[in-house]
Amino acid sequence: MGALLIRLNCKKFDRGNTVPNISANTLRPFAAARRTFQSGEDSPRAFLERCIEVIEARDRDIKAFTVLGLDAARAAADAATERYKNGEPLSLLDGCPVAVKDIIDTADFLTEMNSAIHKGRQPAADAACVAALKRGGAIILGKTVTTEFACGISGPTINPHDPERTPGGSSSGSGASVGAGMTPVALGTQTAGSVLRPASFCGAYAIKPSIGATNLGGVSPVCPTRDHLGVLAGSLEDTWVTAHYMSHAAGPAAGQPALSGTPELPKAQKPLRLGILHFEGWKECDDATRAAFEETIKILSDQGVEIIRPDSNQSLAAIDQVAIEAERPGRDIMCYEMLWPFLAYRDQGYELSATILGYVENGETISPAQYRDALEARDLMRMQVGAYSADVDAFISPASSGSALLGFDFTGTRTFQAPWSILGFPSLTLPHMNVDEMPFGLQVMGFGNGDGDLAAISHWIDDTLLA
Amino acid sequence: MGALLIRLNCKKFDRGNTVPNISANTLRPFAAARRTFQSGEDSPRAFLERCIEVIEARDRDIKAFTVLGLDAARAAADAATERYKNGEPLSLLDGCPVAVKDIIDTADFLTEMNSAIHKGRQPAADAACVAALKRGGAIILGKTVTTEFACGISGPTINPHDPERTPGGSSSGSGASVGAGMTPVALGTQTAGSVLRPASFCGAYAIKPSIGATNLGGVSPVCPTRDHLGVLAGSLEDTWVTAHYMSHAAGPAAGQPALSGTPELPKAQKPLRLGILHFEGWKECDDATRAAFEETIKILSDQGVEIIRPDSNQSLAAIDQVAIEAERPGRDIMCYEMLWPFLAYRDQGYELSATILGYVENGETISPAQYRDALEARDLMRMQVGAYSADVDAFISPASSGSALLGFDFTGTRTFQAPWSILGFPSLTLPHMNVDEMPFGLQVMGFGNGDGDLAAISHWIDDTLLA
Repeated sequence: MGALLIRLNCKKFDRGNTVPNISANTLRPFAAARRTFQSGEDSPRAFLERCIEVIEARDRDIKAFTVLGLDAARAAADAATERYKNGEPLSLLDGCPVAVKDIIDTADFLTEMNSAIHKGRQPAADAACVAALKRGGAIILGKTVTTEFACGISGPTINPHDPERTPGGSSSGSGASVGAGMTPVALGTQTAGSVLRPASFCGAYAIKPSIGATNLGGVSPVCPTRDHLGVLAGSLEDTWVTAHYMSHAAGPAAGQPALSGTPELPKAQKPLRLGILHFEGWKECDDATRAAFEETIKILSDQGVEIIRPDSNQSLAAIDQVAIEAERPGRDIMCYEMLWPFLAYRDQGYELSATILGYVENGETISPAQYRDALEARDLMRMQVGAYSADVDAFISPASSGSALLGFDFTGTRTFQAPWSILGFPSLTLPHMNVDEMPFGLQVMGFGNGDGDLAAISHWIDDTLLA
Repeated sequence: MGALLIRLNCKKFDRGNTVPNISANTLRPFAAARRTFQSGEDSPRAFLERCIEVIEARDRDIKAFTVLGLDAARAAADAATERYKNGEPLSLLDGCPVAVKDIIDTADFLTEMNSAIHKGRQPAADAACVAALKRGGAIILGKTVTTEFACGISGPTINPHDPERTPGGSSSGSGASVGAGMTPVALGTQTAGSVLRPASFCGAYAIKPSIGATNLGGVSPVCPTRDHLGVLAGSLEDTWVTAHYMSHAAGPAAGQPALSGTPELPKAQKPLRLGILHFEGWKECDDATRAAFEETIKILSDQGVEIIRPDSNQSLAAIDQVAIEAERPGRDIMCYEMLWPFLAYRDQGYELSATILGYVENGETISPAQYRDALEARDLMRMQVGAYSADVDAFISPASSGSALLGFDFTGTRTFQAPWSILGFPSLTLPHMNVDEMPFGLQVMGFGNGDGDLAAISHWIDDTLLA
């Protein structure tokens, strides 16, 4: 089943000496292992050691981590091992090693945001999500490379499947960590495409929940009404369980509902109808990418799912257009909301990349009234896309315009991921396609606060494509 | 005009040696002075020196400030003086000395939040409001004492009108700074009563704008859906101009509209009907407080304003009851939202006061679903109170249950200020009443995002009570 070749590209790694050869499947799911912890067949400590083994073998080259806390992690894993022995795990994530993007505050690690402004910065408290994960027994293994403040210049991380390619960004290290099997779970954030694009490029599962479903307390803001805390993981189950746990244990964002759906991955639900969205990104896709996507669609169609296409369905084409046009208000909203803290940094004379300064300069041209107009335009678009829930169960598209690009300066276009970030609706990526022996994801997109439904449908799609 | 005796209580200060005698009116309005800056009759530097004179004379005793930056302030005042000479002030606040509550980040001053957790903490960037004020030429003169994280134990500040009494809290130093005329303007924050109560006790004007109208980026959160950035000032004009400027120059909170109304204080608008609200606080008021309030009401009524009372109007009594009952969902919302950062601080083993730990413990008992229920209950209350805009132009009450209490541990009850904080509707206090020769305020309360209308009505009331 061609479309299923998520995983590895050994040939490329065989050429280099610095990157060890890696075997067929590098993802490292946690939930399956967890179910054997109580019997003693496996343990959090043993699981952690397998993660550390890969980190020690590969992270010198991949550079996913900015800092690691192996001793503390081992102690935490031993404590978790004891709890499972006693039949008293703290949560579904007890003993789960988690890598945390370095724009998320951690009391145990420096949080430097890939900016000289925060060199040596040690937060007093964990971000809400990190504090909740620790209370549930999850093991914060270290911090992962982000682009500058999650929106500026790239860090040193490479793609775990090809040392010449970007891992994507801005959650670069989180994508690489999960893609290489260094951790089963990593936290990322997405304002445009920063969770799903690195997941797609690194062959990881990921979710960007509905806006507000996760608490961003202690996460450096880019654009609060577009910032999403997301999860990259080695299986759909791990992805979902982590997102749901965080949303409920840390609470949603102030004033918002928590993630819908069950703590465990919702039961697989076959969709009746899926709508393909092309966005602007389809134009960027080469023939091989389009063919891989069509091959995947055919598998779903062969199972009796009705596939609706924008080329042959006018109302879906209109939705596609609305999603494309969301970029305009989305950009105004982002630049305006970025004025804090980035204009304050600039005022203080700190160095910021040209990319960030460009956003700030654009933000300075926007009045509160124009900002309000952009918010209202977006609200209308949410209603227009939301109303389409009567017609399809979910939308699908490639999660990126193909597989990872060569080079490191550019982490890839946002065209496939940004519309759902701007709308604040939930999206997922399943690592089930490849091109040039490099993975890329299938994006499944749901409706506002319909995260549980999206997970159920994605569960069915994942099962079907894994079959 | 008895109700107008905002200002000073010389007798009490005559008794002590450490607190100098102060003359009849200690408030120090800025806007009136600003209008003489261009002619050279007065100047930002001269204005600043008058502030510094009072600070040097009184702040050793009052302890409003945690830190002052006099040299930088003088340099900034000189630069502002030049700009006025050239006819090019940066904003209506150019050259205005501002004191900033110490839970608001400042790049030029430590921000310690009256907690050992943040001892020595130097933020990299100014909070959004501070950065905006500085861009407009306002002079950040220093940081003012807050209770612990704006919700815990009290600081060392005394009431400028009586050294034996609390200045109120949590914006204790901001209230005292303005009440003593040390600065024309001070920033505060209000989650329950933390701006209007110290303003009332210290004889200052203040506004707590509609929730979301001001940007709280860089302000330590207590409860994001109840936290308001507010302004205490020496005149209604200064209060309004500062709030409006911040809302538009720093932007509103993400996703929210900016403050309605004009940059200058809206033209006075005589209200047709005002509704008195008693809340739970009326029961706490002694006879002298009630008499002072009734005397003020009579002045407004004598001018032809129809006064509607909850004792004789069933529908207003129902609104009063709704406002009282908002306390229940309001408390759940606050405790739940406080889980970050306060539970994270507790997890880290930091010391927190029993008050804060109590809130956190209560928050831990609340599920996301219960939180959602509380939000929905509050939404309903907002609609119920909001619908009453057909019946009155604004509501009025005392701004506190009388004048400042003796002692310092307790900053006063929140019963008069909390309902409008929970609803997120705008409220103002005008320092036009006194009891026991101590000031207390008249609270004027508006409807959601009707800040401009509230300011226009308050302008008329202020003029009337000053006449």
